[in-house]
Amino acid sequence: MSNYKLTVEYDGSCYHGYQIQGDLPTIQACLESAISMLAGEPVRVIASGRTDTGVHALAQVINFTSTKFSVPVERIPKALNSVLPQDIRVLTAEVVPNDFHARFDAKKKKYFYQLYLARQGTAFYRNYAWCIESELDVKAMYKAGTHLEGTHDFAAFTASGGSVSSTVRTIYNFNLIQEERLVKLEFIGNGFLYKMVRNLVGTLVEVGMGRRKPESIKELLDSRSRSLAGITAPPQGLFLEQVWYEENT
Amino acid sequence: MSNYKLTVEYDGSCYHGYQIQGDLPTIQACLESAISMLAGEPVRVIASGRTDTGVHALAQVINFTSTKFSVPVERIPKALNSVLPQDIRVLTAEVVPNDFHARFDAKKKKYFYQLYLARQGTAFYRNYAWCIESELDVKAMYKAGTHLEGTHDFAAFTASGGSVSSTVRTIYNFNLIQEERLVKLEFIGNGFLYKMVRNLVGTLVEVGMGRRKPESIKELLDSRSRSLAGITAPPQGLFLEQVWYEENT
Repeated sequence: MSNYKLTVEYDGSCYHGYQIQGDLPTIQACLESAISMLAGEPVRVIASGRTDTGVHALAQVINFTSTKFSVPVERIPKALNSVLPQDIRVLTAEVVPNDFHARFDAKKKKYFYQLYLARQGTAFYRNYAWCIESELDVKAMYKAGTHLEGTHDFAAFTASGGSVSSTVRTIYNFNLIQEERLVKLEFIGNGFLYKMVRNLVGTLVEVGMGRRKPESIKELLDSRSRSLAGITAPPQGLFLEQVWYEENT
Repeated sequence: MSNYKLTVEYDGSCYHGYQIQGDLPTIQACLESAISMLAGEPVRVIASGRTDTGVHALAQVINFTSTKFSVPVERIPKALNSVLPQDIRVLTAEVVPNDFHARFDAKKKKYFYQLYLARQGTAFYRNYAWCIESELDVKAMYKAGTHLEGTHDFAAFTASGGSVSSTVRTIYNFNLIQEERLVKLEFIGNGFLYKMVRNLVGTLVEVGMGRRKPESIKELLDSRSRSLAGITAPPQGLFLEQVWYEENT
């Protein structure tokens, strides 16, 4: 039996999220169907984490084990890409120790969220950003975002109904980069709760619109109350950029 | 009667080009249907030029005249965008002199073409770039491209069957910009023949692959022979970026 680790890029626009859901088109369903076809046996895939409907990934990490899969490792990307839809691309493949687990072993992740500032919408970023028609104070947003860095209880920023044992997470780094109309909010952390990034972005946008003060982020964290935090940003602006498996990178 | 000048952004991925073609979805058909609806009378639209199936525009310029159109000019973008598809956006609108003609009065245009360098294709740029899987010598491509600057007979780079009286055009500026995997080829000229930019790009890519020398561009121009020049680059990498109506800008 070999354990294969793949990095996968996908445009989530046409999918009902990562995870298999009956017959709906999902990233996992496409990957499992392509891999199973080449393996000649049903193969289950493990991802570093799920992504919601419309959310994208530049380098999602998955792994799968198979005894029958016999494509030489250097040819795996090309072989899978020849049967996968154009909006899912396998970028790299490697053989890893049998105990490697894409989800349990993930140490750190980076997400970014794109805002597009335009009064008339956007033909090109409609599936890749949240279009904001009003003015945004990005300096205030940056200031607010830095209050997120560190280890905090993010209960105020997770969707209710989650089943995790702890809502404490560490954000190592927050950054905001503006390039013309595009504002990119970057988050590096040891893990993210369900809808946490989108809830953080919704709250930061409210800061940018002047509806909240940058300092209010601290009170929100202390409150642990979802109802006090901001709206959930729409999914299409969110990208999983990178997953790390080593502690110190 | 008023004459309206609009700048329009569109993602050409889902359209059979700019120009009306029976019942096929085209940019012109969408614009005329939206404008006619608001005007309450059939309105014909004039563009700075056509774009082919799959080609995009960041600021196509169109104009139309109407006696019945009564939307205040500052509200035109929002009013049209509320009825246009999401992948066509009106960015600006202004009233211009009655003799303004978006095609005949265009003095200068800028196109760019995007290449994406990746062995495994691209989930995100599949509709916005030509994915090149081999190595490219971009310095040789840049050198080749500078030979295009100036006034030349571009007969070797236009699709046969064109009906223009002259194939002489002036390219004021060529540029090549690389940002990680993305290579952007920019062309500013007084006008472009049918498929000229895509034929130039196809030839430059052959230079980048080492199949032609940068200097061979001069011989190709002299030859006036389409069969000696390179292949036609696919449409999805091409963007009409800007149209100028003043001589000295």
